[in-house]
Amino acid sequence: MDLNSDLGEGFGIWKLGDDTALLGVITSANVACGFHAGDPSTMRKVCEEAAKNGVKVGAQVSYRDLAGFGRRFIDVDPAELADEVLYQIGALDACARAAGTEVAYVKPHGALYNATVHHEKQAKAVVDGVKAFKDLPILGLPFSHLLHWAEAAGLRAVQEAFADRGYLPDGTLVPRGQSNALLTDTKQVVERAVRLLSGELVAVDGAVIKVQAESLCVHGDTPGAVAHARAVREALGTVKPFA
Amino acid sequence: MDLNSDLGEGFGIWKLGDDTALLGVITSANVACGFHAGDPSTMRKVCEEAAKNGVKVGAQVSYRDLAGFGRRFIDVDPAELADEVLYQIGALDACARAAGTEVAYVKPHGALYNATVHHEKQAKAVVDGVKAFKDLPILGLPFSHLLHWAEAAGLRAVQEAFADRGYLPDGTLVPRGQSNALLTDTKQVVERAVRLLSGELVAVDGAVIKVQAESLCVHGDTPGAVAHARAVREALGTVKPFA
Amino acid sequence: MDLNSDLGEGFGIWKLGDDTALLGVITSANVACGFHAGDPSTMRKVCEEAAKNGVKVGAQVSYRDLAGFGRRFIDVDPAELADEVLYQIGALDACARAAGTEVAYVKPHGALYNATVHHEKQAKAVVDGVKAFKDLPILGLPFSHLLHWAEAAGLRAVQEAFADRGYLPDGTLVPRGQSNALLTDTKQVVERAVRLLSGELVAVDGAVIKVQAESLCVHGDTPGAVAHARAVREALGTVKPFA
Amino acid sequence: MDLNSDLGEGFGIWKLGDDTALLGVITSANVACGFHAGDPSTMRKVCEEAAKNGVKVGAQVSYRDLAGFGRRFIDVDPAELADEVLYQIGALDACARAAGTEVAYVKPHGALYNATVHHEKQAKAVVDGVKAFKDLPILGLPFSHLLHWAEAAGLRAVQEAFADRGYLPDGTLVPRGQSNALLTDTKQVVERAVRLLSGELVAVDGAVIKVQAESLCVHGDTPGAVAHARAVREALGTVKPFA
Repeated sequence: MDLNSDLGEGFGIWKLGDDTALLGVITSANVACGFHAGDPSTMRKVCEEAAKNGVKVGAQVSYRDLAGFGRRFIDVDPAELADEVLYQIGALDACARAAGTEVAYVKPHGALYNATVHHEKQAKAVVDGVKAFKDLPILGLPFSHLLHWAEAAGLRAVQEAFADRGYLPDGTLVPRGQSNALLTDTKQVVERAVRLLSGELVAVDGAVIKVQAESLCVHGDTPGAVAHARAVREALGTVKPFA
Repeated sequence: MDLNSDLGEGFGIWKLGDDTALLGVITSANVACGFHAGDPSTMRKVCEEAAKNGVKVGAQVSYRDLAGFGRRFIDVDPAELADEVLYQIGALDACARAAGTEVAYVKPHGALYNATVHHEKQAKAVVDGVKAFKDLPILGLPFSHLLHWAEAAGLRAVQEAFADRGYLPDGTLVPRGQSNALLTDTKQVVERAVRLLSGELVAVDGAVIKVQAESLCVHGDTPGAVAHARAVREALGTVKPFA
Repeated sequence: MDLNSDLGEGFGIWKLGDDTALLGVITSANVACGFHAGDPSTMRKVCEEAAKNGVKVGAQVSYRDLAGFGRRFIDVDPAELADEVLYQIGALDACARAAGTEVAYVKPHGALYNATVHHEKQAKAVVDGVKAFKDLPILGLPFSHLLHWAEAAGLRAVQEAFADRGYLPDGTLVPRGQSNALLTDTKQVVERAVRLLSGELVAVDGAVIKVQAESLCVHGDTPGAVAHARAVREALGTVKPFA
Repeated sequence: MDLNSDLGEGFGIWKLGDDTALLGVITSANVACGFHAGDPSTMRKVCEEAAKNGVKVGAQVSYRDLAGFGRRFIDVDPAELADEVLYQIGALDACARAAGTEVAYVKPHGALYNATVHHEKQAKAVVDGVKAFKDLPILGLPFSHLLHWAEAAGLRAVQEAFADRGYLPDGTLVPRGQSNALLTDTKQVVERAVRLLSGELVAVDGAVIKVQAESLCVHGDTPGAVAHARAVREALGTVKPFA
């Protein structure tokens, strides 16, 4: 199992999450590219630390929305969205290469992640933007339009699950701001992680969803996040980047 | 002689200059990278048209300043400036490669261009940012710190001159906003261009400055700009990108 | 009949529309407040010219979206939207008072205008933002949630119609980007304006919609816009701001 | 003695400093207005809490520079700077009035604060922007161009001193990033505060500077900041807003 987390989500003077601690735990870093968070110096530094820790760098592409941290749906024109994805990957890849690594995959952030589950045109636009850069793997929810279009375009579609987010019975995430959106109990988080190894996760109503996740997302900006991540890693035994 | 011009300097709904007309005249396009102008879709389209016209793509890197169009000096920390330069080149290179071309050189824009004539740390920072990406040629004023540091770093330093800007006797440009900042008479512009072939340009006080310019900059956003560019190209006879 | 138009929609170096010409024709200026367009200097200058021409100043409030010119729906949290509306009105009112006038009404821009036709929470949020500033009139489409909530909050709800936009049979506008979105024939534009005096407008399918518009919107950024505006003013005979 | 501090310096998801704790200590809150920090919802909430605590609201106006937190000098055109100051005060005043209070004074932030000590045109521009809004008091360094022009314009010029910043012998602040820029020892901070009551402060070289400060600035974003602020308040005995 791969362990991924969102990193580099500060901007200028503002910091978010404990990147350094997480880099000792995870195997794949979703690095913010400047559209919802992430200034060039932060991006470069995170890439350098990721490279040192043998952690893969992924482009965490987003709507252009610093004020909303990319957490609000924006009805962007698909052609423009594709170009914005291309721009963000290119910018991060330059930082990554300067740090001796490179962008190895793409994962949309926040509202774009959620939109591309159902929004066919935006899902396809993200895939178009990635392909315009290079045939990179895309991380997303199982059953999402995003992964459907990734496969249709000949890209590697990597199914992921969330260690610390509540699930609806249809396999989508409980929206942030609702109760049950976040699992805050370490025991629950670890149970989720371990059960995923046998291809199952439990929704908020108790329904069991079958998934073949290759990557598990842990967060760094929620209370006790790093402790959760460490507990998950320990419980999983071996973790390694998806191939 | 190479003929360069600033392109892709709109943003979203706002347009500036006549990119299509200029692409039929110039040999090198300085494409805005999103910091003073230039959204991802504009960048990609300009790169596509440049590729079609056999025009080289250069990264026109800038201070982060959409509101001021990159024309105000900003006292950025040099390390951050280097990273911003790296980010911008990477973003544009992704657009260029999607268009079948690539970033072939770098030219700072506006206030950053002027700052790097004298401001040693910012000049070096731009060079550091370029080198962190790749050993690309840098365009700048003869005698500038920018070209000095480019050479010191083993980069190709391309001296350029301006067809339509007034010069001070020390070889720097008359600041925008002052009278004599712009040459608006086509005859003068053409004379400037032709005389540069023999290594000379005339300052606003009549002083003759010796320069070995390999590239000549024409503008696209001043009155009669395209007409000037065409007249210059015709007067020069052959133009071709610097090697 | 009042005649309103969008003004001050440039940003920094970029210009849009012919504000000066329109100020000689219209009676109410919807001034951009910096979120989709409009920098402080432009705002202040437009207010000064409006004051000189006896034209009322309205706050054209928008989503925070310079890159998309406020033309993309953003799923902003209603409480934040209300505060953004308050911020924009306050900023413009400061510019207006420095110019010897004041903000006399509010009209949402672009995607926010369209959203508040149907989106109950965002419509109410705009009204909340206005009320938090002052009991100002709000301009909107007849039958919109926006005007419904404005009335419910005790604000003056001013129905407006568009001289140069295509209408769907339900009284909403044909979205930009679709054919029929814009009327480009002066004769049609004038007919629309004149027929509105008797409370009717004709949708793209020929359906006749009954409306009691107190204000008529003309645009400044479409081809022939100023000519349309002048023709409309002449055809209407008397125009004056709504009371 | 008045006790002032910078508040509302988060942006969107990002937070900075402990506003709630400081509001129980200070008498004047310098609230960020959106240009270096501060989104509309944060601004409104800080104003509401300030009103509840009987703390005065001041406009902490800045260069437009979220990425640099307003800490980099920008060579803005003075006329534009005046309009930006006007815009920011108006935006904050709308938030303040919605919270039952109003903007009672203006204090420039960061690099603009430092620039207006020596930069005559920018100092005058800030004063022009304030006057264009209303005759509000301005806080600044003794001997600064800012306070000189404030007085010349008939505004109340309030001299302030910093409890936790190192001073150069000429009465200006040791630039951030240099050693001695910040006092971190509570005892030193308290001594500074107490000695100011007798009109003296000690520079980093031991020189004694005579000042008649009416307001003392404490910070909320440095280590131990709130503890310092509380210790200063206790040591001063009575604090109250300047009249």
